Amino acid sequence: MAGKLKIGKLVVIGVGLIGGSFALALKRARAVRRVVGVGRTRGNLSDALRLKVIDEASRDPAQAVRDADLVLLATPVGQMSAVMSAIAPNLPAHAVITDAGSTKRDVIACAQRFLGARGARFVPAHPVAGTERSGAHAAFAGLFEGRTVIVTPQAGIAAGAVTVVRRAWEACGARVVRLDAGAHDAILAAVSHLPHVIAYALVNMLARRPDPARLFGLSAGGLRDTVRIAGSSPEMWADICVANRDALLAALEDYGNELEQTRAAIERADAQELKLLFARARAAREKWLVKKRS
Amino acid sequence: MAGKLKIGKLVVIGVGLIGGSFALALKRARAVRRVVGVGRTRGNLSDALRLKVIDEASRDPAQAVRDADLVLLATPVGQMSAVMSAIAPNLPAHAVITDAGSTKRDVIACAQRFLGARGARFVPAHPVAGTERSGAHAAFAGLFEGRTVIVTPQAGIAAGAVTVVRRAWEACGARVVRLDAGAHDAILAAVSHLPHVIAYALVNMLARRPDPARLFGLSAGGLRDTVRIAGSSPEMWADICVANRDALLAALEDYGNELEQTRAAIERADAQELKLLFARARAAREKWLVKKRS
Repeated sequence: MAGKLKIGKLVVIGVGLIGGSFALALKRARAVRRVVGVGRTRGNLSDALRLKVIDEASRDPAQAVRDADLVLLATPVGQMSAVMSAIAPNLPAHAVITDAGSTKRDVIACAQRFLGARGARFVPAHPVAGTERSGAHAAFAGLFEGRTVIVTPQAGIAAGAVTVVRRAWEACGARVVRLDAGAHDAILAAVSHLPHVIAYALVNMLARRPDPARLFGLSAGGLRDTVRIAGSSPEMWADICVANRDALLAALEDYGNELEQTRAAIERADAQELKLLFARARAAREKWLVKKRS
Repeated sequence: MAGKLKIGKLVVIGVGLIGGSFALALKRARAVRRVVGVGRTRGNLSDALRLKVIDEASRDPAQAVRDADLVLLATPVGQMSAVMSAIAPNLPAHAVITDAGSTKRDVIACAQRFLGARGARFVPAHPVAGTERSGAHAAFAGLFEGRTVIVTPQAGIAAGAVTVVRRAWEACGARVVRLDAGAHDAILAAVSHLPHVIAYALVNMLARRPDPARLFGLSAGGLRDTVRIAGSSPEMWADICVANRDALLAALEDYGNELEQTRAAIERADAQELKLLFARARAAREKWLVKKRS
């Protein structure tokens, strides 16, 4: 793997925002010769072909991976076990397999159960990037530029496979960091999965009120930004919530306690305490989020 | 008040983002001759003078309003009673008084208590606009373009005063709607005050975790947008929470119930129910928020 990364055949299973953008970014970097996209719906695969996200479409993952060099699993995490058991018998010995799932312990458990010996070349990865849009038409080559990709290979994974995955993401413009899968799941439950649950719940609560048209009509940019991620794929996020259940329940409990502290201060009309709580949040946001690249 | 609106002397008490932008917008529209800014801190008033947000600075509201034609109260709502009782004896009979507070029932109660006969020319108003930044240096003339300003004059307010306030906001580029003060407070509790409480609580919960630098470092655009409004003024928002306590507690209760329904579905690992909840939220956001002007 010295010199420039060159993947012969890339198979992307699940040609949505993430899978499609990975294909486009590697094409732009001239790091891949041919991309085969695998999907469940004809319409999305047609979009992907028309937009040159992929060079060839297939609805059969087992056939598609026969002569693959790199396989990216970019389906909702709830489909990982079905896809892995379908492709396992046909994976070439040299192929590297990776995924883009937002949870890692469950995907590793799937790989251990379904990929057999090929599991030693499975490199769990999570690109921390996305928009609230989904589907091949939402994909773009620049999605991962300057973003972080977390890889969580456990002991026993082939070092060469880890290198291929790291270099592929670097070719997409991403920065790659290595993390323990459990730490990954706990952190992402807090900074990503919880905010999604919050945004969905807030919109649902507002939509249940009388006259939601007037209610939303009187909202401003604050609400719009707060709930932007409530536009994200329901299927993908339902799967993530189930896959990362324990870490997410722990994060929800912490958040509930924090919210209760604020609620109690409001009930007491304790402006001093509220000011302290809000000032602490503002300072933390300033310190850790404002200077981050968008 | 036929023809073009022309205010002789505008007094802005509280030259922050909202008060400063109101002054700048009226100047740009050539709808005001002279702007006097009143504030508590020398630094912010100097900024306002230097940036030509105001023409004259004063630290004494009672003196400043002596020959005012229009007075805008743009302080945090917690200061309204002190400001009103200070200016009441010196308000000219012809002057129109208005405010820009995010809550309306409490401001109306203040006016009834402290403005005496001048209360008949007090027009409660709330520009539904803002950014997470505060202070005179954050002000800009275009802040209210295309935004909504809600006026909530109760029975007995002079029609001419309402017209002046409506036309002033229209000169700033805003659309003015009239609402009952109670309806205003209930709606804003849900679409604005609750999202702020949520954003502050989420940041505080994350900041309490071990290694917050790593935690925030692995977050993406979703978290950043969700908590953007946690950068808002702590003092202003503490006051709003106290001023609109009952409506906000009711909104928090609804939100808590919605969140609990989601939490229970996560605990049951009920992907179907989660998918339904998230799809409902996505559809509501799409219908009511996506097509709104930013």
